[in-house]
Amino acid sequence: MHRVKVRVVEDALDANNTIARANRDDFDRHDVTVVNLMSAPGAGKTTLLERVLDDLGDVRAGVLEGDVQGSYDADRLASLHIPVTQLNTDPGFGGECHLDANMVRSAVPALPLADIDLLVIENVGNLVCPAEFRVGEDARVMVSAVTEGEDKPLKYPLMFRTCELVVINKIDLLPHLDFDIERYLHNLDAVHPGVPRMQVSARTGEGVAAFRDWLLQVKVPV
Amino acid sequence: MHRVKVRVVEDALDANNTIARANRDDFDRHDVTVVNLMSAPGAGKTTLLERVLDDLGDVRAGVLEGDVQGSYDADRLASLHIPVTQLNTDPGFGGECHLDANMVRSAVPALPLADIDLLVIENVGNLVCPAEFRVGEDARVMVSAVTEGEDKPLKYPLMFRTCELVVINKIDLLPHLDFDIERYLHNLDAVHPGVPRMQVSARTGEGVAAFRDWLLQVKVPV
Repeated sequence: MHRVKVRVVEDALDANNTIARANRDDFDRHDVTVVNLMSAPGAGKTTLLERVLDDLGDVRAGVLEGDVQGSYDADRLASLHIPVTQLNTDPGFGGECHLDANMVRSAVPALPLADIDLLVIENVGNLVCPAEFRVGEDARVMVSAVTEGEDKPLKYPLMFRTCELVVINKIDLLPHLDFDIERYLHNLDAVHPGVPRMQVSARTGEGVAAFRDWLLQVKVPV
Repeated sequence: MHRVKVRVVEDALDANNTIARANRDDFDRHDVTVVNLMSAPGAGKTTLLERVLDDLGDVRAGVLEGDVQGSYDADRLASLHIPVTQLNTDPGFGGECHLDANMVRSAVPALPLADIDLLVIENVGNLVCPAEFRVGEDARVMVSAVTEGEDKPLKYPLMFRTCELVVINKIDLLPHLDFDIERYLHNLDAVHPGVPRMQVSARTGEGVAAFRDWLLQVKVPV
């Protein structure tokens, strides 16, 4: 029984990866770099994007907004005057907690791939399932807010282990928290030794230039 | 195709509810009140429990700790000298993002139901799937941290709509955030009009007495 369940999950992930490769082919055909942006709810993904996507020089950015329902984040990004495509996970399901390759596949025809160089996919806020489903991205970025506590890398290791960059956000609040950044970094290195990380405050703008620079140079093999 | 998918999901939820009733029968047989405690990762569920469970007078409490892996929260609660049972969601799956009735069912034999009056089930940190799966609880409590932003009730409506109480946590940080509590409460009432709510700081202890009192009087029909 146990082994059958494992097999079913593996088959589902194989199918997901096949569709992710089809997405990847479409992105490659248009030379679009794709970043899968993940975090817990309220970690500051959208605020971070508001800070950096309006100032990428010659790089033309677009966003695919993943949400259970509504278009609250897409509405916030409207002022940036970049293409934003909404992808909701609730129709017919009652709400999926992550994006998978097939959902992104369904959105590909609506993406202006010929007119952008960089696509940021803002995933559903969740530290578990988004990590299990590749969607055809070049790189995965995790936003981890210091308000969530030092233990999060240990409690959600797959998410921290499968990303190329950890953006440690809300550092403006450090003076008001019982948060030991050294202990957090120790926990982070325990699950993903040496993973690139940067400390930022999307709210004040501190450190976000480093994330902008990272976006401008990113081109990591899948 | 679409309708088939909906049907599959409905069947799965029907099966879950059947098992939830079996859990409920076991809890009733021992006259144990069960609270399902849910939140995003890092909202402060464990800190809140550390504050209240050591001071419930004659009420004997126990905890069922739901985590993807590890026993970090259970270890934190060990100092309370109450029974804590660990339930991990990762064996054979790579990590489930929620507890369902069947997982709780598997833990029932390990629960000291004859020796407790109140069981708090600390769910996996996630604002989507835990809301879809009843586990046999009397009441559902959501912990919502002000650091997560005013928009969360609108973005994760099912979670806020299916709970009997919203504990608004981390209010000690309000002076340092751009968080309009009135707008948050407006959003909360938009998805769950009049749901009982309390403002607390699990870190400083402010307001937690009200949550303790609520736990002592809870006995809500499923």
